[in-house]
Amino acid sequence: MSAPVPAIMRACVITAPGGPEVLALRDVPRPRLGPDGVVVRVRASALNRADLLQRMGRYPAPPGAPTDIPGLEFAGEIAEVGAHVVGWEPGDRVFGIVGGGAHADYVAVHAGSLAPVPDGMPWPIAGATPEAFITAHDALVTQGGLARGERVLIHAIGSGVGLAATQLARMLGAEVFGTARSAAKLDAARAHGMHEGVVPMDGARGIAEAVLAWSNEHGVDVVLDLVGGAYVAESLRCVAARGRYLLVGLVAGTSTTIDLSRLLRHRIHLMGTVLRARSSEEKAEATAAFVRDVLPGLATGALSPVLVAVVPLERIAEGHARLEENATIGKIAVTMD
Amino acid sequence: MSAPVPAIMRACVITAPGGPEVLALRDVPRPRLGPDGVVVRVRASALNRADLLQRMGRYPAPPGAPTDIPGLEFAGEIAEVGAHVVGWEPGDRVFGIVGGGAHADYVAVHAGSLAPVPDGMPWPIAGATPEAFITAHDALVTQGGLARGERVLIHAIGSGVGLAATQLARMLGAEVFGTARSAAKLDAARAHGMHEGVVPMDGARGIAEAVLAWSNEHGVDVVLDLVGGAYVAESLRCVAARGRYLLVGLVAGTSTTIDLSRLLRHRIHLMGTVLRARSSEEKAEATAAFVRDVLPGLATGALSPVLVAVVPLERIAEGHARLEENATIGKIAVTMD
Repeated sequence: MSAPVPAIMRACVITAPGGPEVLALRDVPRPRLGPDGVVVRVRASALNRADLLQRMGRYPAPPGAPTDIPGLEFAGEIAEVGAHVVGWEPGDRVFGIVGGGAHADYVAVHAGSLAPVPDGMPWPIAGATPEAFITAHDALVTQGGLARGERVLIHAIGSGVGLAATQLARMLGAEVFGTARSAAKLDAARAHGMHEGVVPMDGARGIAEAVLAWSNEHGVDVVLDLVGGAYVAESLRCVAARGRYLLVGLVAGTSTTIDLSRLLRHRIHLMGTVLRARSSEEKAEATAAFVRDVLPGLATGALSPVLVAVVPLERIAEGHARLEENATIGKIAVTMD
Repeated sequence: MSAPVPAIMRACVITAPGGPEVLALRDVPRPRLGPDGVVVRVRASALNRADLLQRMGRYPAPPGAPTDIPGLEFAGEIAEVGAHVVGWEPGDRVFGIVGGGAHADYVAVHAGSLAPVPDGMPWPIAGATPEAFITAHDALVTQGGLARGERVLIHAIGSGVGLAATQLARMLGAEVFGTARSAAKLDAARAHGMHEGVVPMDGARGIAEAVLAWSNEHGVDVVLDLVGGAYVAESLRCVAARGRYLLVGLVAGTSTTIDLSRLLRHRIHLMGTVLRARSSEEKAEATAAFVRDVLPGLATGALSPVLVAVVPLERIAEGHARLEENATIGKIAVTMD
């Protein structure tokens, strides 16, 4: 099924902190096979905001990941299998998340982070699936406990994670509200199941008022926030009693002044979360939950990542520049062939 | 075992919003027996900060509780048992929490909120036990998941809840750090098991620095915060990865500016919590956990509320005035006889 793994491979390397121009396609040693892992011949990956931050020098790679090769998700065929690994064979079509290194021809992956790619799913779709759907599922379901009939508010709903979360929340029977920076993003989110949406005014103004109106003053039970900053204080004003607030991103800023009395009286849980830095064991848990709850929907096509563009690895810098403009809707996939 | 319940009883009534002088001992109709509850002949209760806020008109009674009779905890004998209640008999010595009304000769209690008073425990001790120990156990264990070998930081450690939490955390095998507004309070907390403590400078300054030094820069895994305000932002600086921050009180203020990036990177959970407003079902769950985990320690004397004073119901206004001075260490019990 698989050719021998060469000693040298192509990789997207961060040559210095900076703009997209610091990225270069380089020949580097291929990753080593560990006893508990596999080496995957990567066919596709996708861009995430963490890749941009890492490139700028603002978000160092977590322990165990390559320091200078970004890429948090992969889809491809298993090339080599570690001595302790059972249940996986060379040639198996797999996808999943890693702490980095996926923007390359080969990536080393802990076996617990492998999930089977559904039959017939094209590589660019598969490469753009794991990070968005595992992040959205882990936040909404595993941590947020989103239940049928509840209301959820999703900030940056036009992003890859936002659109994955919209589909998941609808599948769970929740009512979905969203915010985005353009009407076009809201239109896309509506096409994937969002019930009501708003483009906030300066800062975050108007969000709570809109949500309270949509919900007959009840507010929302869960917030999935990829924006942060002033969005947190504003959104807490419309979280219902026993609500769960999942903070996943901070593009709007890293500090906010919050009303603690509302947090206390309504018994709200404000939870920061991030996948990249988790241990192998925790990534394996999140992957197992994804396989159980999300993979069936991906196999039938009921769930699917939204792709705005596909760029080959040698033009990945163009993808970085495009994601940085904050105008993309959904994911930018990266292909290796 | 028990005399018939009279139609009229004595109660501490809030006659108007204001200082301790608005409290008056009045004859009022005794509470009605519901089919799922009991009426308890109260022998002792205790004061809580919520009683002061309710008296000032700043914290209305929750639905189902008397609007003008404070009192969140009781100890006494069952006087009457509702038609649907099994397992409890008139004369049983019981204690527990209610949404209000315990500063009176009789109180109506949902049967799920009843726990048996350990043999030999004096009434003033029993009356000062439920709120502090249920609050501390629910926050530290049920919500905070405090585990053996973890570190916990307790603000207002000289309070009734603070000293109960100190004893519980020690029993669980945790390392206990604390803050208080006087050296005398820290001394009392040390006597109950606190390892290290500090009196913060202006505002909350110095807390994070002290905690990081005590913990070899590791920080704490759980915070139990009865103070709020600037303490929240300051304390978040010394919460370890995957730490749980339980916000239980707000005497220092209701807003603070927090560092969201730390919340996200360290995957911290900031949770507001309050017992008073919970449903009967939720109070029953918290009571069942208290019976399972805390009652055995209370029965042996390994755990015990710290009493600073005992006042009879007719002098409860003196207790209010004393608690308001913020110099008390532990609980002020109220007796009905």
